Amino acid sequence: MAGNLPIDGRRLWDDLMQLAGITDPGKPYTRRSFSPLFDEGRAWLRKRFEAAGLETGIDSGGNLIGRRAGSDPKAGTILIGSHSDTVPSGGRFDGTAGVLAALEIARSLADKGITLRHAIEVVDFLAEEPSEFGLSCIGSRGMAGVLDNRMLAYTDPSGEVLSHAIDRVGGNVATLPAAKRSDIAAFFELHIEQGLVLQEGKIDVGIVTAIVGITRVEIVFKGSADHAGTTPMHLRRDAFTPAAKTAVFVDRIARELVGRNAGLFVATIGIVSVAPGASNVVPEEARIVIDARSENRALMEEFLAALDAETAAFAAQSRVERAVLMRLSDTDPTACDPRLRALLRESADALGFSSTDIASGAGHDAAFVARIAPSAMLFIPCRDGKSHAPEEWAEPEALAAGTAVIAETVLRFDRMQAAPQGA
Amino acid sequence: MAGNLPIDGRRLWDDLMQLAGITDPGKPYTRRSFSPLFDEGRAWLRKRFEAAGLETGIDSGGNLIGRRAGSDPKAGTILIGSHSDTVPSGGRFDGTAGVLAALEIARSLADKGITLRHAIEVVDFLAEEPSEFGLSCIGSRGMAGVLDNRMLAYTDPSGEVLSHAIDRVGGNVATLPAAKRSDIAAFFELHIEQGLVLQEGKIDVGIVTAIVGITRVEIVFKGSADHAGTTPMHLRRDAFTPAAKTAVFVDRIARELVGRNAGLFVATIGIVSVAPGASNVVPEEARIVIDARSENRALMEEFLAALDAETAAFAAQSRVERAVLMRLSDTDPTACDPRLRALLRESADALGFSSTDIASGAGHDAAFVARIAPSAMLFIPCRDGKSHAPEEWAEPEALAAGTAVIAETVLRFDRMQAAPQGA
Repeated sequence: MAGNLPIDGRRLWDDLMQLAGITDPGKPYTRRSFSPLFDEGRAWLRKRFEAAGLETGIDSGGNLIGRRAGSDPKAGTILIGSHSDTVPSGGRFDGTAGVLAALEIARSLADKGITLRHAIEVVDFLAEEPSEFGLSCIGSRGMAGVLDNRMLAYTDPSGEVLSHAIDRVGGNVATLPAAKRSDIAAFFELHIEQGLVLQEGKIDVGIVTAIVGITRVEIVFKGSADHAGTTPMHLRRDAFTPAAKTAVFVDRIARELVGRNAGLFVATIGIVSVAPGASNVVPEEARIVIDARSENRALMEEFLAALDAETAAFAAQSRVERAVLMRLSDTDPTACDPRLRALLRESADALGFSSTDIASGAGHDAAFVARIAPSAMLFIPCRDGKSHAPEEWAEPEALAAGTAVIAETVLRFDRMQAAPQGA
Repeated sequence: MAGNLPIDGRRLWDDLMQLAGITDPGKPYTRRSFSPLFDEGRAWLRKRFEAAGLETGIDSGGNLIGRRAGSDPKAGTILIGSHSDTVPSGGRFDGTAGVLAALEIARSLADKGITLRHAIEVVDFLAEEPSEFGLSCIGSRGMAGVLDNRMLAYTDPSGEVLSHAIDRVGGNVATLPAAKRSDIAAFFELHIEQGLVLQEGKIDVGIVTAIVGITRVEIVFKGSADHAGTTPMHLRRDAFTPAAKTAVFVDRIARELVGRNAGLFVATIGIVSVAPGASNVVPEEARIVIDARSENRALMEEFLAALDAETAAFAAQSRVERAVLMRLSDTDPTACDPRLRALLRESADALGFSSTDIASGAGHDAAFVARIAPSAMLFIPCRDGKSHAPEEWAEPEALAAGTAVIAETVLRFDRMQAAPQGA
């Protein structure tokens, strides 16, 4: 580990491993939002924030925030962080790496007696992962002012209402509008890539260009459940054949859209079911769910139009009905702030780390914070792209490098903002 | 209904509706083999057989048989029948139509005081449908001498052993070799088509050329469960794409093989599963089961060779492993006896019924009886090809026509056999 970094990589790593130890022992690494283990993790974090001299509390939206004041109350706040909750049987890096990197940056500044013009806040956003309430990014939605009453009424399987759960972990839904911030000058989030691009390219850090928009489409084909032996090929109405043609088409067009070099595009069919599901019965129904993601809405629109036309044709070819073609969800891509991206690149260069532009194929809290403030994300490599699994791994050196790049960027941003407006 | 038929169509129809009434009332029409309702149906059948003057009993293999002796003890036996068990929520015709047609033929002969040279036996084969023991055609296997000790040791979900269940319904597994017959001069089975060919062609009866061989192949592709957002198309190893390509290929080659006009060929993918089965995870595993059927083994061999080659290529294209390619089952086609087929056609012509050659895409008891005796099957039309469902239906006139054709064939067969051998 390089000794000349503006942060202490070993201390950061020790923090990360300690927080990882707060897990369901039978199902590492699990610290689900709103669970007793989540509270335990937060209590540990709160102590850590306080030990670093941060003024620590939980905002109305349930976000744990540690603050170090700046010298210029008018300069606003540099917010840094991510989330401490995990998926079931998740890993030790997704989210926590970003929270503890932020803590390490604030702590290093304090250690060195550096006071910035901007206030620094370290944030652990509430419930970034899809929670038991069927909602993700709860805390960052709250901070962006888009956690609405419909969402607050969601219930978990035990029947608890989301608004109650937010209050239970220290938030205050009655004053939720107060969670919406207008003082954030910049937001930075460090995260593991959750993909293979940095590892394959042996690149130290990825500077996120945009967070993809995600469109999920459900398609159901309906045919006829005929006898697999006594129904000749020309008389059958097999619902699976058009579903299979759709999958082949989706794979082909996704690769074609990637070839345009117009930004990230991926499409996946992860849910497939066939009914009645017997080897000797022609499928009456086939259901697929397509997850398509792009940082370029134009690519997505082209994909969706082609999907509509092709699946209608596939249904007709098999004499079946395309009974459902429904967008289950549809979000636009979020571009990261160009000025912050440029600063991240300069900082990586200055510290001697290689960097590349990269789109985020996953959703993140930064996509919500971007609605209220200039936001940027930095990816660090993770082993074999594995994430949301116990084997999720990033090297200590990689985490230290990414944290150092954000620390350097924070310093540069603070100085840049100090320059006379007319310069 | 024609009045000049050699059988009484109304009496036959009344029998059929009465037997259909012996059903699980909440799940018509259900009379599962080895169940109390099955016993009840058999008790009703036994009385019916006895009322028709048939010497009635259950053989060692559990088949209910009613016999009317012939005038020439050396002539052997003409066996006619099918099965009285049903699938869950099945219909009123599959199996029972063949058993009661056989009864009507024997009864009509008795009514008219006609004694044939051959003995006539009416048979209700035990458990033709896949039973709770995971085995079909249990009684006809026993009669053909191919119900082996491995099968007899199968258990049902309650833990009962098949050999015990056969004894329980009146069989005698200790003397099972006695069930194997060598005296059958001809076997005839009437059955609903369970397909659309006769209805679409407005044809009275189908003369079965062969009962298909059925080959079931399981294929499992194994890839990598990567993040649907963060794994670029060129780095993923998606197990569903080759499975989808396989389905498109199977549909295409099946139609191509049908186009050879070399006999029935059908292929179906009725079982499809994908793991882990989340919309945002690239499928790690995809499993399909292919059910292919043909009356021509050469077509089947060509299909299986192409399936092997193509699926290996599809796996390679997606950088996944074809972890399993296994024949779950594989039976050869069974040709029906050409002489009996010719007699059935002559008889249909003589009675003024239209007929066509047709392959059976479903398995039947006749495929086992064919191992020990000349065997033939006659199909009657059924509405919209529906079978194994409560809406299964055949017209009374269609059932009477088919039964009359077999009755006429029995008479002709008996006379033909009486001719001097050298003639």
